[in-house]
Amino acid sequence: MEIDGIIGRIATNLEHLKQYTATPGEGCTRLPFTKEARDAVNYLTTIMKEAGMQVREDAAGNVIGVLEGKNPEAPCVMMGSHYDSVINGGDFDGIAGVVCGIEVARQLRDSGIMQDRNFVVVGFCDEEGMRFGTGYFGSGAMLGDRDVEYCKSFKDKDGVSIYDAMVEYGLVPEKIREAAWAEGSIGQFLELHIEQGPVLDTENVEIGLVEGIVGIQRYQVTVHGRADHAGTTPMDMRMDAVDAATKVISKIPDWAREKADGTVATTGYIRTIPGGMNIVAERVEFTVDIRSMNNDNINDIANRIRAALEREVKAMGGSYEINAKLEITPVFLSKEMLSRMEEGCKKHGYSYKYLPSGAGHDSLEIGQVIPTAMLFVPSRDGRSHCPVEFTKYSEFAKATVIITELAMQLLSE
Amino acid sequence: MEIDGIIGRIATNLEHLKQYTATPGEGCTRLPFTKEARDAVNYLTTIMKEAGMQVREDAAGNVIGVLEGKNPEAPCVMMGSHYDSVINGGDFDGIAGVVCGIEVARQLRDSGIMQDRNFVVVGFCDEEGMRFGTGYFGSGAMLGDRDVEYCKSFKDKDGVSIYDAMVEYGLVPEKIREAAWAEGSIGQFLELHIEQGPVLDTENVEIGLVEGIVGIQRYQVTVHGRADHAGTTPMDMRMDAVDAATKVISKIPDWAREKADGTVATTGYIRTIPGGMNIVAERVEFTVDIRSMNNDNINDIANRIRAALEREVKAMGGSYEINAKLEITPVFLSKEMLSRMEEGCKKHGYSYKYLPSGAGHDSLEIGQVIPTAMLFVPSRDGRSHCPVEFTKYSEFAKATVIITELAMQLLSE
Repeated sequence: MEIDGIIGRIATNLEHLKQYTATPGEGCTRLPFTKEARDAVNYLTTIMKEAGMQVREDAAGNVIGVLEGKNPEAPCVMMGSHYDSVINGGDFDGIAGVVCGIEVARQLRDSGIMQDRNFVVVGFCDEEGMRFGTGYFGSGAMLGDRDVEYCKSFKDKDGVSIYDAMVEYGLVPEKIREAAWAEGSIGQFLELHIEQGPVLDTENVEIGLVEGIVGIQRYQVTVHGRADHAGTTPMDMRMDAVDAATKVISKIPDWAREKADGTVATTGYIRTIPGGMNIVAERVEFTVDIRSMNNDNINDIANRIRAALEREVKAMGGSYEINAKLEITPVFLSKEMLSRMEEGCKKHGYSYKYLPSGAGHDSLEIGQVIPTAMLFVPSRDGRSHCPVEFTKYSEFAKATVIITELAMQLLSE
Repeated sequence: MEIDGIIGRIATNLEHLKQYTATPGEGCTRLPFTKEARDAVNYLTTIMKEAGMQVREDAAGNVIGVLEGKNPEAPCVMMGSHYDSVINGGDFDGIAGVVCGIEVARQLRDSGIMQDRNFVVVGFCDEEGMRFGTGYFGSGAMLGDRDVEYCKSFKDKDGVSIYDAMVEYGLVPEKIREAAWAEGSIGQFLELHIEQGPVLDTENVEIGLVEGIVGIQRYQVTVHGRADHAGTTPMDMRMDAVDAATKVISKIPDWAREKADGTVATTGYIRTIPGGMNIVAERVEFTVDIRSMNNDNINDIANRIRAALEREVKAMGGSYEINAKLEITPVFLSKEMLSRMEEGCKKHGYSYKYLPSGAGHDSLEIGQVIPTAMLFVPSRDGRSHCPVEFTKYSEFAKATVIITELAMQLLSE
């Protein structure tokens, strides 16, 4: 059966790529512009060539394979994901999307049909932003959004700038603009990625049709009260920052649940200062992260937080600050391409579900300017960015079958 | 006017004692068995002698002055507080009570009346417990509750035990039992202390009649959820430890306010683990400190916390632990002596108020076995255990007038 061959090739390639980690035995650590990154790019180059592609590395460190069509000047169909990882991450996040892109190219080549347009597979450099505190480096450069100044502005924990790291890696940062693709040269973008959440695994669904990438607003809040002795200060004479802050924090998850449309809100960090068990807290710092496909829901929850802070902090007698740390509006992906892949799932009898992506991806950058579609495959127990990250090879294989069929349609249009 | 002389002597002595700190310019740091402690004890010895007392240091490092009465074998009236401080503390906490005790002795001597019983002033060693993580060392030893084993069990941050520190200071730990007073030898105990809370200062009251020392229950709570990605985990698939914990914490102050009888409850410490702004918290640790003169109120709030944890943690799907770290029942002081001092306040036209003590004092130890009364004087802005701690000398002086009159009554009975 054809699918067994696909599973076997994906398994071979991902098992091979596992070795390119700076932390063997403790998950994948493949930071950009390192020996592990170079080794992975070399291997991707090899298998791209085996799949019939012409391969080059661009000025941003992206590895690009081109399966030529009859009309190489026409806008290409591109598929890609990233080859870097977080520190002590998993063996699938990012790299699986590149390997599956190459597998799609191989299936296109093996079909024996010369397509009209080019099919391009890209392994993007530095999506995670783990080393320099940035992200979407390669995909941003492809869109023309990165320059030499940018490369000089960000440094890793050892003080090495992106610029210096690129030079040491063998790239020429002054040429970074050459990584940009001309407007109109990319017709469609496709990405396959692990879900990194529990929905598909929990609901036993094989393929996630990603309707879009959620918008995010992230806030850092500080509530100021007054430090007092917890024993000698009566309740009506204290300005307890914990009292006011927790009256706000405790309501945030309920506001997200009320929306009942996948909106999520999280306080992952709370700090009490000075933090003594017998001292009324002078200050509480906390974070809020709100995400939804519906930007109105995000704004509504942010407004409710502001109103609750106003009310509770006034009652307490203190003050507060709320600072926006991040604001991204939702990105909607191509309904037309998703609908074609839905038909593909039905034809093959693969279970599927429309769902949003709660995390950012290269498609988040690219989807803002180019028609983009994204598929998710299940992450066991929703675990990701850790060594136990796992997806069955057969699930990747099924997704490549769906994408290959879509690519064939697109390439002949 | 007589009161001016009293104010002057208290001012002179407290101003002089300020210099015996290990942190000049940064508040009072007078830890037990140090050079600063020795200097303070030497000065207290000098002024005790000037007030007509016979002075000795006991085996626990307490300095004891005796103003002899006609019948030195009869139970004495004792007044005292501690001469040690916290690190970077104030110039009044503890030491002011010793200085005022000596002032009371001087007023008794200057009255020209030879009292029937001995009046004893004690400067207690190591009430704060700051150096060895203990407390009430000198008062405990006076009651026979400290032994050599105890001295060997507690060490300071440099690994020096109480035992070693005593030896270096010139004491003989093996004789610690000799610091214990025979049963019945102390008739009454009196203590004057700064309030360390804002009530008297806020309400502009001169004298606090301390009806008792609050009971305390202190808990360490851990709520266990599960770490998940804040973007990819739907609200109904997450186990958010912050959600459950803050739903409990936010109610605790309200439960204390409801009692409307001085009951206080405080969460001074909250920690989120791992604490990332985009990670659902796996674990929240927090503390609860509950104090009241009514032990039923403390138990009721502790029970409500347990019930709320049970409910919220069950709804969240996780687990929790609640560990009692401290449990002290309230101590009620002598109504009869307080009532006599109330009469004294009325006679002199001093404003007064009955209030509980929310913090522990030597009177907490002693009041459990000996009839005890305690007076508070105002702490400006309720501040204590910090360099800005302040009480007007005139307020100490007025309190000594009230205590001297009570002592005169007691000594002749």
